[in-house]
Amino acid sequence: MGAAARSVVVVGASAAGLRCACRLARLQPSWDVLVVEEREVFSYGACGLPYVLSGDIGEAEEVRRTAWGVVRDAEFFDACKGVRVLPATRAVEVRDGVLAVEGPSGREELPWDELVLATGARARRLPGQPDHPAVRTFHTWDDVEPLREGLIRGRIGSVAVVGAGPIGCELAEAFVAMWGAEVTLLEAMAHPLPGLLGPEAAAVATGVLKSEGVAVRCGAPVEAIEPAGEGVVVTAGGERHAVDTVVVAVGVEPAVELARTAGAALGPTGAIAVDERLATSVPHVWAAGDCIECRHAVTDGPVHLPLGSLANRQGRILANVLAGRDDRFGPVAGSVAVKVFDLEVAAVGCSLERSLAHGLDAAAVWMTTDAAAHYWPESSNLHLCLVYERGTGRVLGLQAVGRRGAVRAVDVAAQLVARGGTLGELEHLEHAYAPPFAPALDPVAVAASVALNACEGVTCTGPLEPPPGRVLDVRLPEEIGERRTPFREVLELPLHELRRAEVPGGPGELLVVCERGTRSAEAVRLLAARGVTARYLGGGLLWRWAAGNGQGGAS
Amino acid sequence: MGAAARSVVVVGASAAGLRCACRLARLQPSWDVLVVEEREVFSYGACGLPYVLSGDIGEAEEVRRTAWGVVRDAEFFDACKGVRVLPATRAVEVRDGVLAVEGPSGREELPWDELVLATGARARRLPGQPDHPAVRTFHTWDDVEPLREGLIRGRIGSVAVVGAGPIGCELAEAFVAMWGAEVTLLEAMAHPLPGLLGPEAAAVATGVLKSEGVAVRCGAPVEAIEPAGEGVVVTAGGERHAVDTVVVAVGVEPAVELARTAGAALGPTGAIAVDERLATSVPHVWAAGDCIECRHAVTDGPVHLPLGSLANRQGRILANVLAGRDDRFGPVAGSVAVKVFDLEVAAVGCSLERSLAHGLDAAAVWMTTDAAAHYWPESSNLHLCLVYERGTGRVLGLQAVGRRGAVRAVDVAAQLVARGGTLGELEHLEHAYAPPFAPALDPVAVAASVALNACEGVTCTGPLEPPPGRVLDVRLPEEIGERRTPFREVLELPLHELRRAEVPGGPGELLVVCERGTRSAEAVRLLAARGVTARYLGGGLLWRWAAGNGQGGAS
Repeated sequence: MGAAARSVVVVGASAAGLRCACRLARLQPSWDVLVVEEREVFSYGACGLPYVLSGDIGEAEEVRRTAWGVVRDAEFFDACKGVRVLPATRAVEVRDGVLAVEGPSGREELPWDELVLATGARARRLPGQPDHPAVRTFHTWDDVEPLREGLIRGRIGSVAVVGAGPIGCELAEAFVAMWGAEVTLLEAMAHPLPGLLGPEAAAVATGVLKSEGVAVRCGAPVEAIEPAGEGVVVTAGGERHAVDTVVVAVGVEPAVELARTAGAALGPTGAIAVDERLATSVPHVWAAGDCIECRHAVTDGPVHLPLGSLANRQGRILANVLAGRDDRFGPVAGSVAVKVFDLEVAAVGCSLERSLAHGLDAAAVWMTTDAAAHYWPESSNLHLCLVYERGTGRVLGLQAVGRRGAVRAVDVAAQLVARGGTLGELEHLEHAYAPPFAPALDPVAVAASVALNACEGVTCTGPLEPPPGRVLDVRLPEEIGERRTPFREVLELPLHELRRAEVPGGPGELLVVCERGTRSAEAVRLLAARGVTARYLGGGLLWRWAAGNGQGGAS
Repeated sequence: MGAAARSVVVVGASAAGLRCACRLARLQPSWDVLVVEEREVFSYGACGLPYVLSGDIGEAEEVRRTAWGVVRDAEFFDACKGVRVLPATRAVEVRDGVLAVEGPSGREELPWDELVLATGARARRLPGQPDHPAVRTFHTWDDVEPLREGLIRGRIGSVAVVGAGPIGCELAEAFVAMWGAEVTLLEAMAHPLPGLLGPEAAAVATGVLKSEGVAVRCGAPVEAIEPAGEGVVVTAGGERHAVDTVVVAVGVEPAVELARTAGAALGPTGAIAVDERLATSVPHVWAAGDCIECRHAVTDGPVHLPLGSLANRQGRILANVLAGRDDRFGPVAGSVAVKVFDLEVAAVGCSLERSLAHGLDAAAVWMTTDAAAHYWPESSNLHLCLVYERGTGRVLGLQAVGRRGAVRAVDVAAQLVARGGTLGELEHLEHAYAPPFAPALDPVAVAASVALNACEGVTCTGPLEPPPGRVLDVRLPEEIGERRTPFREVLELPLHELRRAEVPGGPGELLVVCERGTRSAEAVRLLAARGVTARYLGGGLLWRWAAGNGQGGAS
């Protein structure tokens, strides 16, 4: 704390800016730390806003309070944190050592020794998106009340949500679950949560959305949004949807105007480029939060990941750096979680599709397991997709969906993804086991075993692929009952009989199926020892059914 | 798979033995794999047995079935796995290349090329423990039914459980929750779960046990168990407990008699010594599961950890090794989880007490956080105790207790503990964030920050320590209300006033307290900048109250 007192100005009073300012005020109590914020209301849990709309959280103020019930306004930061915040003050321009702002008392010039850009991101708009009360975005505090009001008063009975990313999915749930609105979820890409998931995990989310009454339209880019009286007509993928309100949730873009005036370089993603110390290209100008790009641990390339978890960490690290400590924000693995009704959806690293697009020699395995011991009455199915690099066995990504255990699985895998760990390391992870909490073998470790098996030829097909040829069902007759495979030309031969039986030959590759993929994988190994090449259905029929593709029964 | 066909005999048909045998049969289908098992019933989920007793699991058979409903008996292993199991066959002696067994058809000698000792462990008995129907242990399948029967028929209305380890706690819950029995839990050590937890985390578990009606007696070693008619009188810690049944759950000891006949060396723990390939000191004799000792990642010394999670992994690894692959079972971090009523209890590595006993220069911090975003309505308190090595910052252990999130926290920390990672690495872990699942900053990462703060002088006292001198409560007056501290001589001065106020001097060190330890830590830093030395109450008053030490209110 011996450094000479400095004057630090932070632009933006969200997670990154405030976390930085408050910690810096603690580490360097003699420094002058000032935060400039363009909005009146700030320092709220933006990720909680969908749950204010859904009614899970009683009133918006709750996401703005501390754990001990105090509203985080300018007075709070001044009195409790020793940090001055100027709300309703827009930062206009950065010049050498000075920040020009426009606030309640007009234009002012604030001198700084160190400038922190935590300008965040703003909701992306569609090209040609009309300005109309029935056409909304959902990103800030101010976006909640008009929608809530419209729902309460019955003015909003039908909604189109454009974009099935995390926010879009959360909004669809809020509108349906709380308000019983008719919701159409429109996604330009082939499946929901395209940034996070491959098609198989996404299909499980789609299944849940549909079963809860959300009309999901994928591969449906918006062609037009036309106001029609008090409502709006959305044309997407050739279909017209006349709704009371459309919410455009097609992601965010970094707010970089101020950085431009400072001469700070932007990166290929359009966000502010920073080094591991969160320094921009301009000396004494730093940046953190949703306005910067990071380095991705898997692709080693730049990525714009506007996540509250990262913004908070960056704010703390930047405070450490400014205070003169050696701290670094390293490459990110990109861990993300989304609640989709009662489904946990989580992912880290890259999906197979994204890995291949990045030129990686990637492969994936799919599996279905139990979140707890299989005999534990409250256990539920957990579907995992593990992506790895052929040859090196490097773990590239994990996607997990299930009522329980998905977030945990991703949190466990994230460390390995972040540091370039291998399947062998993942397989040998230790976990805290008790039947109510986990199976005796950690599902994530089993996924690694499945991938290692695949590396030696026990390979699976994705849960949505059509069978390559003949299908062999190795379940027991009493198990199959009404739970038949959705395939034609299925030979039913339980695993224990397969050991003794001849497998009838025929054209095309053999696909072995069972309930969750375990027995069929064993069958593939058994057949290989007899010279018969086969693959098995990854994640078993349970995954295929969870994907709800209209082919069959159980949930 | 090119190795010459070999004859492998496995002794013990539990997790390690069967996992090894089945995988080996898959990897080397031409080999002869035989499993010898002394009991009639085997391959059941032993960790599920307490939940059979509690009624959570409807009937014992369920823990013996596969996920697809098939009972795992000798026929199952033969038909489905290609593995021959000889039940009710006791392995008597190992001689060069031959295993002598006694089974239904008398004495036999089984030749082997490779011998796997997976003989497991057996319930430890107390010195002088009488053989009497009212004096029981709880370790195997056969131990369940007599107790269940006694409870159903009303013959068991009061129970003493000796040993408050994981099994003891699970049994206490089963007896109380399902059967309304009067349960006294007797523990020789100072607190429950002594092998896992330090006194602070254990006190939270004690609080839950007591609030659910379990009479907990710690520091109460058993002095006598005397049958009295159909019941029994247990004298422990000077108290006499007349009960219908006593269950002795004082841990297990490795079954090493067969290993002795083979000449395999035992380690300092009394379990079979093996190397990382799970080889014993005798060529071609291997061992896995509850009968072996492992190397502990934190102490680098031997440890006997009879855990189902490890046994399963060892079985798989040994199969790989026997099949000619390069696989290793490395040092263990010792991750453990226990459900104590609705409390998740989990730990990894060493507690502070155990670390110090091993001569490590260890310190600990305690914290209370939310398992999810603090504004999420279903969030709950999570209490963490993080143990680290001074100087190096190596993470030595983590204990976690709470209604949610404890097991996840331990699973996340386990990787770091296993590989000797540091607080800095732990602080920078990435997690999948969404308000229903986690706070924006991962509780485990925050614990690391708290420890790093402690390293620079922002130190805390354990939640159970008496205050060293004066106490400063920095909560708001409206917060305090009925929730006063349990301390005398408390100065109430909210954090925001502390910034402006003089702290009145006085004798003794100052202890700063608040609800969860966040604000009081900030206050300590603030005071330090003014030259006032203080510490704060780790985990805040919430932890102290959760410890239920009779000092105060909220849960």
